[in-house]
Amino acid sequence: MTQPLVGVILGSKSDLETMEACTRQLEELGVPHELIIASAHRNPQRVHDWAAAAADNGLKVLIAAAGKAAHLAGVVAAYTPLPVIAVPMKTSDLGGLDSLLSMVQMPTGVPVATVAINGAKNAAILATQILGTGDATYRQAIVAYKARLAE
Amino acid sequence: MTQPLVGVILGSKSDLETMEACTRQLEELGVPHELIIASAHRNPQRVHDWAAAAADNGLKVLIAAAGKAAHLAGVVAAYTPLPVIAVPMKTSDLGGLDSLLSMVQMPTGVPVATVAINGAKNAAILATQILGTGDATYRQAIVAYKARLAE
Amino acid sequence: MTQPLVGVILGSKSDLETMEACTRQLEELGVPHELIIASAHRNPQRVHDWAAAAADNGLKVLIAAAGKAAHLAGVVAAYTPLPVIAVPMKTSDLGGLDSLLSMVQMPTGVPVATVAINGAKNAAILATQILGTGDATYRQAIVAYKARLAE
Amino acid sequence: MTQPLVGVILGSKSDLETMEACTRQLEELGVPHELIIASAHRNPQRVHDWAAAAADNGLKVLIAAAGKAAHLAGVVAAYTPLPVIAVPMKTSDLGGLDSLLSMVQMPTGVPVATVAINGAKNAAILATQILGTGDATYRQAIVAYKARLAE
Amino acid sequence: MTQPLVGVILGSKSDLETMEACTRQLEELGVPHELIIASAHRNPQRVHDWAAAAADNGLKVLIAAAGKAAHLAGVVAAYTPLPVIAVPMKTSDLGGLDSLLSMVQMPTGVPVATVAINGAKNAAILATQILGTGDATYRQAIVAYKARLAE
Amino acid sequence: MTQPLVGVILGSKSDLETMEACTRQLEELGVPHELIIASAHRNPQRVHDWAAAAADNGLKVLIAAAGKAAHLAGVVAAYTPLPVIAVPMKTSDLGGLDSLLSMVQMPTGVPVATVAINGAKNAAILATQILGTGDATYRQAIVAYKARLAE
Amino acid sequence: MTQPLVGVILGSKSDLETMEACTRQLEELGVPHELIIASAHRNPQRVHDWAAAAADNGLKVLIAAAGKAAHLAGVVAAYTPLPVIAVPMKTSDLGGLDSLLSMVQMPTGVPVATVAINGAKNAAILATQILGTGDATYRQAIVAYKARLAE
Amino acid sequence: MTQPLVGVILGSKSDLETMEACTRQLEELGVPHELIIASAHRNPQRVHDWAAAAADNGLKVLIAAAGKAAHLAGVVAAYTPLPVIAVPMKTSDLGGLDSLLSMVQMPTGVPVATVAINGAKNAAILATQILGTGDATYRQAIVAYKARLAE
Repeated sequence: MTQPLVGVILGSKSDLETMEACTRQLEELGVPHELIIASAHRNPQRVHDWAAAAADNGLKVLIAAAGKAAHLAGVVAAYTPLPVIAVPMKTSDLGGLDSLLSMVQMPTGVPVATVAINGAKNAAILATQILGTGDATYRQAIVAYKARLAE
Repeated sequence: MTQPLVGVILGSKSDLETMEACTRQLEELGVPHELIIASAHRNPQRVHDWAAAAADNGLKVLIAAAGKAAHLAGVVAAYTPLPVIAVPMKTSDLGGLDSLLSMVQMPTGVPVATVAINGAKNAAILATQILGTGDATYRQAIVAYKARLAE
Repeated sequence: MTQPLVGVILGSKSDLETMEACTRQLEELGVPHELIIASAHRNPQRVHDWAAAAADNGLKVLIAAAGKAAHLAGVVAAYTPLPVIAVPMKTSDLGGLDSLLSMVQMPTGVPVATVAINGAKNAAILATQILGTGDATYRQAIVAYKARLAE
Repeated sequence: MTQPLVGVILGSKSDLETMEACTRQLEELGVPHELIIASAHRNPQRVHDWAAAAADNGLKVLIAAAGKAAHLAGVVAAYTPLPVIAVPMKTSDLGGLDSLLSMVQMPTGVPVATVAINGAKNAAILATQILGTGDATYRQAIVAYKARLAE
Repeated sequence: MTQPLVGVILGSKSDLETMEACTRQLEELGVPHELIIASAHRNPQRVHDWAAAAADNGLKVLIAAAGKAAHLAGVVAAYTPLPVIAVPMKTSDLGGLDSLLSMVQMPTGVPVATVAINGAKNAAILATQILGTGDATYRQAIVAYKARLAE
Repeated sequence: MTQPLVGVILGSKSDLETMEACTRQLEELGVPHELIIASAHRNPQRVHDWAAAAADNGLKVLIAAAGKAAHLAGVVAAYTPLPVIAVPMKTSDLGGLDSLLSMVQMPTGVPVATVAINGAKNAAILATQILGTGDATYRQAIVAYKARLAE
Repeated sequence: MTQPLVGVILGSKSDLETMEACTRQLEELGVPHELIIASAHRNPQRVHDWAAAAADNGLKVLIAAAGKAAHLAGVVAAYTPLPVIAVPMKTSDLGGLDSLLSMVQMPTGVPVATVAINGAKNAAILATQILGTGDATYRQAIVAYKARLAE
Repeated sequence: MTQPLVGVILGSKSDLETMEACTRQLEELGVPHELIIASAHRNPQRVHDWAAAAADNGLKVLIAAAGKAAHLAGVVAAYTPLPVIAVPMKTSDLGGLDSLLSMVQMPTGVPVATVAINGAKNAAILATQILGTGDATYRQAIVAYKARLAE
């Protein structure tokens, strides 16, 4: 089995529909990945265990998607030295402004890399760019992707 | 030594100046309390340990104050059956709207009781009201406080 | 008949559909409750009478749900020493930001415990947590609920 | 003693500095008025008594100024058939957006006439325009004021 | 023919559906009124002529409804000594926050009395309250209306 | 005397300090201009007369600066076929969001060309770019300006 | 073939439906134009080449429509001395506030002329007003258009 | 000379004071870097040349800081396969909400990794985390940094 390099974590099963654009894009870019669903609030222990073990398990980049008071990315970032990409989910009342501010405004010392509201596909591309800083295969995948985009 | 009933946790030492209005008000209402400073992001283990042990240690109500992507109250609430009061700190750029939304918009299953931006004093009063539901001393303290307010 | 411990008040009959998640959750947690519908603006006397008598009538926690310029929770809190939980209703124009700010930004001296926009279920959980500070039955109900959540 | 026609109510003594522009403008326009300070939350009974008696006491227009979760104007409007002008106070964290939405977004059946954030002077002018619909003296005072404005 | 006392002006024919709640409420309260449709931007001359003549034509209160950069109420207020009620229309992109701020934030000297977003019915009630300051018939109509509301 | 080509109108004398950056930039770019101060609300007749005569008086582009419920640019645009540039003034409570939305959200049929909050200098540059579409002198002035910028 | 005077550029094919109101209005006003679709982010070279050549190709005014982090108008403006009109597209999450601020808040030195969210038709009218400063035909087209509007 | 791995680009010299926290943090973490100041709007060619050459010049991660309609990060990302970190600068009128939305809401295909408003230090930490995915030295630097944070 291929070692997954990107770990995707969703705060709720309801985020799955939007985030399938993320895993599809990872596949298209040839990036092995794993996905779990675990809420920072309802199942904090599972989130902790996954995040704290992520680096040792061979993951290189983490992607966390959540909505409303979206703490998932920050909680994950607290427990890992890996870069964490945050995807704020659109919400039915405030449009996702709540998710966005809950993710992007992280205090000094523990950043997360926030992409657009519902930016599932961009999270995958950013994860691949990050892998590309250490592995020319992924750099090439991005170069090829950008060339297709421009057409 | 008196058993503390309210535990106050601050995300940063810089929140102390604002939150002294909270501890002063607890004292004025005769509520024994303890205060710790620990960031959900910079020291998640300490927050976890304090929150997970709070009920067993005899605390009845927790108050968490934090700013920006303010996850502290939600993280604490994830680890305790106690009611958690959230105090969103005013921020220099967005005025505290970020702290407020990061606290109040908690997902289903794990509520926090959010008060106003910088509502340090109100957090103390609310904590005392909560204690008052099980202990007539604190009910009386609130009744007396409200009578003084009305003058 | 069981003595109700939680009193739920709605500003408008139209809030009932959303707030049924609150009363269902109270039932699931075994919390006896009562519900009335009365507007702080259209029927202020009825709100006053209910709020002012709530403590003497044996209620321990109040939950107020309202939308737009949502004064109901604050008005209730002005007349009772009990803790008051505020549920801001989603609005069709501003998404509930108006309801949220009208509830959470209470001035010093009279707090309300605000939950998320349309956070009906969380209001019930928070009310039960508050009851749990004085009654081990409700503490146990929450502990059991959180264990189910984590599964 | 002249019968006051406009009643001005402030939610807090701290609103007095801003609202002096209101009473000064009423004086300049020759409108007899009275001013009281009473919080809808800290002293609801006093607000109720004043509002409920206002029409019988000969007042014709009420002006209510308050900040944050600014319920004062709505509470007053609930108890009187008189027109109520609302002045949202600027706040230090959200700039007064909270006060504005808490006032202007009144539910159907109980309007308040909201002016700009910190619009103390405009509240006085609007009150005089309202008096002018039934009394030519005040109509003339406004006509003269507008002529001076245009110079 | 009865002399109309309230003049209603709409910035666009598309506002008519929402504003029929206003004219229906005026009828229910027995207030004679007239309605015109004229845009402050597309037909400024017609707006000017109507507003400048309104007082001489026997109107006592004006109601202006408009959306987006909603200048109609302010433009009308500039040309008349009568009180002007502003109804911000809900917009499809910003929910009516644009209409609201364009109306309520009037500069010193020229107030408008702003009601809630899409507050058509409340505009009618407020207009009747204003007429009631000079005419006991309308005062009675409001007293009766509020009694019905409370039931 | 040189025929002014750009007419600058300010809603209030207090806007002069910020808008001096506009007139200075027009001078630096060699654009003859005139400036008047007149409020759309306090002196609507003067605004009307100036706007309605602007084209006949040889002006080619108008710049209107105002704050809060900033109707000036829209009112001017209603009376002239010339392009109108709108400069939303920063406000002390909402930071200029009110001015911006009051200007930019113009309804269909009557556009204004809105620049940034307090964008005094950019208004001058945009006016010169507009003049440059019909007069090579101003096109050259812009080309030269952009070259200096890039250094 | 007629020389196009207005160049319309769209950031995405999905903007075409909204922006057809722009090209239809240009046609109705008799303004020759061209339209291209090119993203500032996905195909920056094409945007650069089009913008940098626009003036030499005889275009006089450019219109750029884009959504979300809408950089297109600013990028185009950076490469041309021509006036650039920006049309912020409505977005599904934040209603277009993101597109609006990304366009209108341009830094000193490089303005764009921003119209309302989805203001496709107004962009066409503004472009024609700008052409009218140098060509009486377009001035007349606007005068006639405004006369039709007022009917 | 050490090959710089992180390239920092500022949209304006005025961003330097805030962003010195970024370069200081890079130094503290032992990350070789370079810094240039170039505006996407005033000097687009320089930005293009730097961004397009960055990967070939050996840079691995880029950090772009800008304010208002902050296009810099997006423009850089359009020209490079490298990951780009965006730092939205606080603004004096809208607090940085404009900068934040202009950066984070990037359209599909071209992500940037956005950190908090004025998050200079966090940008440095995130850049180091990204380098750490391919180079154990930087992974260790982060692990050590997080250990110090927790103390």
